[in-house]
Amino acid sequence: MSPSLPSTYTSLTLSSRPKASIIPGETFATNTTNPTPSPTSLRDGQILFQTLFLSLDPAMRGWLNDTRSYIKPVQIGEVMRGSSVGLVLASKSNKFAKGELVLTNSAGWTEYAVLDDKHCERVADTGEGKRRSAIDSLSVLGLTGLTAYFGILRIGEVKKGDFVVVSGAAGATGSVVGQIAKIKGATVVGIAGTDEKCRWLTETLGFDKALNYKDQDFAKKFREVTKPKLIDVYFDNVGGEILDLALSRAAPHARFVMCGGISQYNEAVQKGPRNYLMVVSMRIKMQGFIVFDFEKEYAAAREELAGWVKEGKLKRGETVVEGGLKEAEKALVGLYQGANTGKLLVEVAKLEDKAKL
Amino acid sequence: MSPSLPSTYTSLTLSSRPKASIIPGETFATNTTNPTPSPTSLRDGQILFQTLFLSLDPAMRGWLNDTRSYIKPVQIGEVMRGSSVGLVLASKSNKFAKGELVLTNSAGWTEYAVLDDKHCERVADTGEGKRRSAIDSLSVLGLTGLTAYFGILRIGEVKKGDFVVVSGAAGATGSVVGQIAKIKGATVVGIAGTDEKCRWLTETLGFDKALNYKDQDFAKKFREVTKPKLIDVYFDNVGGEILDLALSRAAPHARFVMCGGISQYNEAVQKGPRNYLMVVSMRIKMQGFIVFDFEKEYAAAREELAGWVKEGKLKRGETVVEGGLKEAEKALVGLYQGANTGKLLVEVAKLEDKAKL
Repeated sequence: MSPSLPSTYTSLTLSSRPKASIIPGETFATNTTNPTPSPTSLRDGQILFQTLFLSLDPAMRGWLNDTRSYIKPVQIGEVMRGSSVGLVLASKSNKFAKGELVLTNSAGWTEYAVLDDKHCERVADTGEGKRRSAIDSLSVLGLTGLTAYFGILRIGEVKKGDFVVVSGAAGATGSVVGQIAKIKGATVVGIAGTDEKCRWLTETLGFDKALNYKDQDFAKKFREVTKPKLIDVYFDNVGGEILDLALSRAAPHARFVMCGGISQYNEAVQKGPRNYLMVVSMRIKMQGFIVFDFEKEYAAAREELAGWVKEGKLKRGETVVEGGLKEAEKALVGLYQGANTGKLLVEVAKLEDKAKL
Repeated sequence: MSPSLPSTYTSLTLSSRPKASIIPGETFATNTTNPTPSPTSLRDGQILFQTLFLSLDPAMRGWLNDTRSYIKPVQIGEVMRGSSVGLVLASKSNKFAKGELVLTNSAGWTEYAVLDDKHCERVADTGEGKRRSAIDSLSVLGLTGLTAYFGILRIGEVKKGDFVVVSGAAGATGSVVGQIAKIKGATVVGIAGTDEKCRWLTETLGFDKALNYKDQDFAKKFREVTKPKLIDVYFDNVGGEILDLALSRAAPHARFVMCGGISQYNEAVQKGPRNYLMVVSMRIKMQGFIVFDFEKEYAAAREELAGWVKEGKLKRGETVVEGGLKEAEKALVGLYQGANTGKLLVEVAKLEDKAKL
């Protein structure tokens, strides 16, 4: 039997801006006494939302800084922002019915929320059950998959015969990037942080090669693997030393797809790529992008991604952290330490435990 | 009366690769006892060339490093490479007659050379005398002007209403870049290293504003000048702190034209832009280029540049170092210290002093 709706619920708010790494228990405040909204309090167009899965993304660290960026910083005292999937527990919306799964960027790190239906999207049924559909909507068919898709195709302009190197290759985005590059006929080398991740890349995802950047001989191996063919496309999720190595081994007119720099997000003073002048001598196009820029093309891209998943050409990987919302903070710290393989999600509530009204 | 051809001539060869700055008297060796070739020794298709002007360019420092680049390093013992203009003293070529002015990248730092005519190009007569034509062919109508042209138009994609910032703005390339951006209807701010250069930029060349980067309040002024309008196009000749400032003030989808990094060329350990992650958040296209990539379009570009010069829309500036070839080494060191305004040239021989055969 499902539990009934509790009288209070938990949310996590930003408590102080970290100067370097996130400090569990200090960066976020856990508020356990929010009064749960009553279904009868909903206004027209609103739904009562119960969070099932939170998406944890490297970009989140940037949202905690009070600096100019592509998105407003999370404010002190504000519920931590993030994509999530949840269940419609009650609805006064024409768009969504009770029991449906919806995706939103407006709930954030909370167990329950009242949402306007215009900030929600229906979760596509991928035909493998509700749980799988929920996870896919945050990963391979969500902003993660779309980021990989537009990054490697539009910014990277990957084509048959290209030599592609992906950093953070066992992460949510990188793992999809490398597979799309393979689908397009490129040779793909992935960089990851454990031998097990490297094996996953080559044995399960079909990368041509994978290198562990924690390997003592990594720089040497990197140079070997980029000889004699130099890098045509480098997809960067990481920055730091690996970006410098990639610059040193770039082919003329290489495309450097700048998606993120997870090695730098938690540094008080960030380091720039000291080999950046290779951009001049090798005529590199180093270009950043944000998936939002391609919003009008999401539907078509999702369709293509879903097709590849069905055909078995695009394999999914995810690390689901159990234990509820209270695990989110530690899980986010773990993201920056490479704890996950594939997409990192926190399971806030299990589908079978959905609240009963 | 012209002097007769001397029995020996001087050339400068690379003697040792500098680890950081060029060391006069050590980096290059001066060879004063090269036997002057006899006009009768020419083979078919060859000319005897007397150097009049050497072009000194920031990129030269890179040619001294034994690293992978867009061009082979100058070898130890090899005559220092560079563009030059000279006089045809004798000819067994069908293309060039005695007394003509030719442009070449094959002579380098030497007073005389025997050249194949396929490595030479006729200097266009700009209608203001031979000396002016010679200088223009190395500066505004030479690789310098072409670099500015293709950089700001093709890589920078400058358009009316853009807000453009140029570093190294009083240099050979920067001064042309800013003027082309003005011609195209942009607002242009130049960064230079003396107040006098800044005045030249605004009062003579028509830049909207100029800032002296050696000013104590430079960073503050830079932020003020980029408010509220952020940078659409940044043309970088300099790297270092100014590049970081420009990144911090980049507009979404800004174009960063990566032409050079003169602040870094003489550093034993180069510094990368620590704000490089603005490339991601602001979706910057940071793109390098080398003028050679546009070789097929040189003629059309030169015609447009020459037209602007004639109309008075594009003003020339140059610093001509006198005293002959022996001044080249010191002059090159001076280039990295900002000694020049506009194009830096060494006058190796005066036209009126041409050797008599």
